[in-house]
Amino acid sequence: MVVELISVGTEVLLGNIVNTNAAYLAERCAYLGLSCYYQSVVGDNAERLLGTINTALSRADMIILCGGLGPTEDDITKETAAKALSLELEMHEQSKERIQAYFDKKGLKIADSNWKQAMIPKDAIVLPNDNGTAPGVIMEKNGKTVILLPGPPNELIPMFENSVAPYIMEKSSAIIYSQVVKLCGIGESAVEDQIKDMVGNSNPTVATYAKTGEVHIRVTAKADDEKEAKKLVKPIVKELKSRFSLYVYTSNAEVSLEAATVELLEKNGLTITTAESCTGGMVASRIINVPGASEIYKEGFVTYSNKAKKLRLNVKKATLSKYGAVSEQTAKEMSKGACINTKADVSIATTGIAGPDGGSEAKPVGLVYISCTICGKTKVRECHFSGNRMKIREAATTEALTFLRMCVLEYYSEKHFA
Amino acid sequence: MVVELISVGTEVLLGNIVNTNAAYLAERCAYLGLSCYYQSVVGDNAERLLGTINTALSRADMIILCGGLGPTEDDITKETAAKALSLELEMHEQSKERIQAYFDKKGLKIADSNWKQAMIPKDAIVLPNDNGTAPGVIMEKNGKTVILLPGPPNELIPMFENSVAPYIMEKSSAIIYSQVVKLCGIGESAVEDQIKDMVGNSNPTVATYAKTGEVHIRVTAKADDEKEAKKLVKPIVKELKSRFSLYVYTSNAEVSLEAATVELLEKNGLTITTAESCTGGMVASRIINVPGASEIYKEGFVTYSNKAKKLRLNVKKATLSKYGAVSEQTAKEMSKGACINTKADVSIATTGIAGPDGGSEAKPVGLVYISCTICGKTKVRECHFSGNRMKIREAATTEALTFLRMCVLEYYSEKHFA
Repeated sequence: MVVELISVGTEVLLGNIVNTNAAYLAERCAYLGLSCYYQSVVGDNAERLLGTINTALSRADMIILCGGLGPTEDDITKETAAKALSLELEMHEQSKERIQAYFDKKGLKIADSNWKQAMIPKDAIVLPNDNGTAPGVIMEKNGKTVILLPGPPNELIPMFENSVAPYIMEKSSAIIYSQVVKLCGIGESAVEDQIKDMVGNSNPTVATYAKTGEVHIRVTAKADDEKEAKKLVKPIVKELKSRFSLYVYTSNAEVSLEAATVELLEKNGLTITTAESCTGGMVASRIINVPGASEIYKEGFVTYSNKAKKLRLNVKKATLSKYGAVSEQTAKEMSKGACINTKADVSIATTGIAGPDGGSEAKPVGLVYISCTICGKTKVRECHFSGNRMKIREAATTEALTFLRMCVLEYYSEKHFA
Repeated sequence: MVVELISVGTEVLLGNIVNTNAAYLAERCAYLGLSCYYQSVVGDNAERLLGTINTALSRADMIILCGGLGPTEDDITKETAAKALSLELEMHEQSKERIQAYFDKKGLKIADSNWKQAMIPKDAIVLPNDNGTAPGVIMEKNGKTVILLPGPPNELIPMFENSVAPYIMEKSSAIIYSQVVKLCGIGESAVEDQIKDMVGNSNPTVATYAKTGEVHIRVTAKADDEKEAKKLVKPIVKELKSRFSLYVYTSNAEVSLEAATVELLEKNGLTITTAESCTGGMVASRIINVPGASEIYKEGFVTYSNKAKKLRLNVKKATLSKYGAVSEQTAKEMSKGACINTKADVSIATTGIAGPDGGSEAKPVGLVYISCTICGKTKVRECHFSGNRMKIREAATTEALTFLRMCVLEYYSEKHFA
């Protein structure tokens, strides 16, 4: 079954609000087995809205409209959708009573315009709204279904979950199930090159998405029920894990790179400290954002000045003057000193040039050294990032977590390190 | 001039990502004087994309497409848009060189598929991309303009600002000029109450936008030229500054709260250190993201454990056992100790319960103490935030910067403090 989403409202059209409703509805519809090929946004204009609904009716089985169900003259979604299906509006007594009760409860005086919200297309299914005055509507005619939902997410979401999802589940024959395999330390084109044979698959489909320093591969299957869909997805996920082995940090959509890294440290009984110059607290912040990080993370340093590098991390004055603050040698001494001074088992250190100033030909903006010390052994990586100051710092932070993870894995798998 | 926005990508269509690009582009186009009546989202499917572009061409003067400019086979936006305008693609030598340089700089091997990104429709304007490999494109034919932008916001936004906005401004007849007044330390409803008389204005319009811990007031005027528009905006901005006085941290759109705070410290010749528990590096990170922060920021501590609070910040064992790590007393000792141990003039300290666990009736999740020490004097603030772990930490970080700014202002304006 094909669904199409139409968001109605000038606020969305002018970019005053971000269209989170469309993302929510799209994700839920996909999960419920509906195929969605188009989404659109149109303002509260009768002619344009009617045209958009008619176009959608010509190419989809079901249309979900959100927004424009309010009490003001601007709100014309219900009237226009009824017109598109040639349905008359009539007063719906239960909705009228519910609106009256809603206002009584709030101790507010009801405006005449509010009764407009109790007008419902003939023979339509009325969806109760527990969080506002506008009821939702499901209309069916000539094999097409048109569903109207209120715009505010706190009204739309409960209405969808309580009334629309069960309605769709009864109509829909197929289910969509997807799983994501998350990789770090490898670029998108390298990933694409290694899964060329899978990208053409129609069921399950395999698609890659690039994030800063990460690549996610999503495997999506369509089947009659969840069990069957999972059976289609499972061997592909297994194959991806085998092909990308250590680059795969999780196959759980909920798990972030930092969460996987914290788990890895915890599993190996390792405590960690951070010693950050250019990333200035971002590595610490991402680790600490993992609930329970206090088990492995006790403290960290933001050593932005040379003096702090010397004082907190024992970086030698001679190293700083001979090689500079942004150098392999300084990075190494930072991570070594951080372990010594905090008694942590592992440390990760960053030093680099985030720009916009401070770069030179030999040490350009974007040059970052990342050093990892594990139980006395140290490895360092030279990186080159591009973009503005924030982009460089974010990339360096993700790379630091990736490098940390790889170093821990190597330390344990190869039993030798550095 | 009428513009239409088309977002291309399965991730948006499936609701895996929220379409923030559309909101950004819609808002910017509106400010540039363009009318937008439709937005759409379509997947990476040649036939459906071509249909969507053709429909848009039939009703708009300018179409902006975003997404689908990547190196993979899935990415077909450029090819399809060129087809809609009957333009041939040809290799663009400068783009080829730029892509080569981008990969060389990263020390990565270039994949054959990457050359696809250097193919440009004949006679098109190429928009440089400083943050990725996909160049943007502007095509003009038969009075229509089609603009292609990359999907990642950190590539799309700078490209729009640097290349597309100036292009549109040259084409557009009316000018839209807006200025933003940024406030911290005051809530959105309090702001709205104080500008009720202005919100109804039609030219310039006055609108508020709430951000985490901040309120932005945007004043927008439409006029024949920039000079006239500025003349309309100026008295309103002046009045807003007068009404909200100290709450206004800037009236420059480019200046962030952290940048304004760094400037304030620099102006007063103050150095600063950070001592963070629950925010775990986020305050440091935001300060360090300001270019030139090294003038005022030398080092900071992430003291997540009690041991670190004692060792790095001299928090007394008795204070921790009597009042707990999340208390006014501990916060105060943290900021005092941070100043003493680093010889910084100012320090800001945070300690709180970010959740999801660790809360109690007396100290619920979301409770955060923020302490600021200036030249030996200390002030502390108790805050209650809501949301998930990340939301609470973000709110605490913005509040710490706001509190820091207010404390510095008070210290100098009232000549007494604490």
